[in-house]
Amino acid sequence: MPAILTSRFLFGPGPGNAYPEAMAALSHPVIGHLDPVFIERLDRTCAGLRTVWGTANTRTLPLSATGSGGMEAAFVNTVSDGDVAVVAVNGLFGERMCEVARRCGATVVRVDHEWGQPVDAERVLAAHPAPKVIAAVHAETSTGVLSDIATLGANKGDALLIADAVTSIGGLELLADQWGIDVGYAGTQKCLGVPPGLSPFTVSERAFERRIRDPRSWYLDIGLLGGYAGAATGSRTYHHTAPVTMIAGLEAALDRILAEGLDAVQARHRAAGAALRAGLQELGLELFAAEGSRLDSLTTVKVPDGADSAAVRGYLLRNFSMEIGAGVGAFKDSVWRIGTMGPNASPAAVTLVLGALEEALAKA
Amino acid sequence: MPAILTSRFLFGPGPGNAYPEAMAALSHPVIGHLDPVFIERLDRTCAGLRTVWGTANTRTLPLSATGSGGMEAAFVNTVSDGDVAVVAVNGLFGERMCEVARRCGATVVRVDHEWGQPVDAERVLAAHPAPKVIAAVHAETSTGVLSDIATLGANKGDALLIADAVTSIGGLELLADQWGIDVGYAGTQKCLGVPPGLSPFTVSERAFERRIRDPRSWYLDIGLLGGYAGAATGSRTYHHTAPVTMIAGLEAALDRILAEGLDAVQARHRAAGAALRAGLQELGLELFAAEGSRLDSLTTVKVPDGADSAAVRGYLLRNFSMEIGAGVGAFKDSVWRIGTMGPNASPAAVTLVLGALEEALAKA
Repeated sequence: MPAILTSRFLFGPGPGNAYPEAMAALSHPVIGHLDPVFIERLDRTCAGLRTVWGTANTRTLPLSATGSGGMEAAFVNTVSDGDVAVVAVNGLFGERMCEVARRCGATVVRVDHEWGQPVDAERVLAAHPAPKVIAAVHAETSTGVLSDIATLGANKGDALLIADAVTSIGGLELLADQWGIDVGYAGTQKCLGVPPGLSPFTVSERAFERRIRDPRSWYLDIGLLGGYAGAATGSRTYHHTAPVTMIAGLEAALDRILAEGLDAVQARHRAAGAALRAGLQELGLELFAAEGSRLDSLTTVKVPDGADSAAVRGYLLRNFSMEIGAGVGAFKDSVWRIGTMGPNASPAAVTLVLGALEEALAKA
Repeated sequence: MPAILTSRFLFGPGPGNAYPEAMAALSHPVIGHLDPVFIERLDRTCAGLRTVWGTANTRTLPLSATGSGGMEAAFVNTVSDGDVAVVAVNGLFGERMCEVARRCGATVVRVDHEWGQPVDAERVLAAHPAPKVIAAVHAETSTGVLSDIATLGANKGDALLIADAVTSIGGLELLADQWGIDVGYAGTQKCLGVPPGLSPFTVSERAFERRIRDPRSWYLDIGLLGGYAGAATGSRTYHHTAPVTMIAGLEAALDRILAEGLDAVQARHRAAGAALRAGLQELGLELFAAEGSRLDSLTTVKVPDGADSAAVRGYLLRNFSMEIGAGVGAFKDSVWRIGTMGPNASPAAVTLVLGALEEALAKA
């Protein structure tokens, strides 16, 4: 028998708990990927994604892969052998961008930052005189740090700007067009409140014109996927069988977010982040991410002296059916990551996780 | 408002209707991708996949992509610049294999067959003296044709054998180890009775040892994914956020199939295919796929003189909320594809689709 769980409070870095509307939509009847009802669903989903991306890009769609697949799509469509990619690295996902870009054949110019610090736009922009792409993570999931994408976009010159918005989309301010993002990828399992499995993706007209023709990947070729989503041509070409059920979940979550109002949803995430930071400091804990660059969706906090990270997390899991995240890399045992995303960006969720953590610190 | 459907009878080439157990599992609480409950779930899912693949391969797992992503994973991990790939082409998915292999840098030796005919193993084996891989589709979704994989496997020599089992896995006999399949990929949305979004994937030890190191794709790198699924090493390395909800659906469907018994499920698919073929011929229709090579999971039938393919399909959709598939390529308007997969491999489903089609032929 598979394990049965009545609930899990997901306060880790993601997946977070999903919006009930998304979960309900998953159980709707399966429909064909060429069904007129699905075509309408995909169109509505792409329209909703444009709103949360802050873009008018026709080529905005849910890729049939997770956020890391979206990262791969961003690079495989923009860089090929010998192209220069300047990558800002201030956490694991910046590191991963370097690796993915390298595999695509790019010459990677890596601009390292201390983990916990935001991207230094000036250094990134000065790293190479004429890169094909500049890439940075908007909201670093590994460190809980927010970076300024707009300054990169305003000064990118001829480069294409790639941005990772996995932990910002649907919860934090995200203005792809205004900030000059050319290629953006994200995930569904954070602030959008949908289970993982799709990557919301957007490509500017400028990036599409300068894309790699005949890229190494067929599955992630934006030249083929654009026709599939029907965005650019107005007609649809079969590419692969869309994950229809996951897209129904995403559509329902987007409907819910837009019905509440994107501004209101973002305000809810800001309030939850602020309340969590204040509460953690009241417990005597020290925040990890640099002040002024802290994500409202994902808070990083130092494990206090004398506490055992794994024991505390185990206590929360056993006693509260609650997950918080460990740190990453060198901070595996010394940092926790606490997400307040999607439905968990609420006063009740913050009160619950703070109360549980206080007990765990005392008793674990 | 999104469109509301109470039901859709999916008798196309896929997705088919899902098993109710799979649909129910989708609405279970979301859990973290590092949660012990999920780790157990992934292990059980991989074990179930080994059974339906007919393999003992430790590296058997659900890729976080659709079947076409699985195809890409098969080639990107086995061929690189200048490697020779012999590809049997007897339908759209053989064609697609050529394109995917070419993008991976392979020199493709294409062995063409008339659509509707099975793969001629002798011709494929004679096509090149020393290919790196030989690739063929077990169950061609575009034509409804079953091909003999075992003969290719028995005579592959030093080559690695890649097989597409998208429309056979979970419904038709599939014996990866016995047949000598080195790399197999499939989909969930056909006989397994799960919505689309994952690709059941299996890699032999022999293929793993001869895999491309540092392949162009990070997302689909089996060297990294093996560690992720924990199969080979016994320990798990974070790679990407698993689509936890889709995997819960797949686990539930596998449980259901194995509880019924794989033999019984296959017998049900055989009976449904035979009944559908007989019923279509009683209606005076002519089958498309070559006799002796007809899929039990997906039947292809010629559109009779005087009937309008699209009008008949539209009639079924409007009056029965029922989908059957059009043909592919040159057979777009002259062939229908009727799937009896997963829960639709039943006498009731066959009676329903035959009755509906009879009415549509008379009235559309």
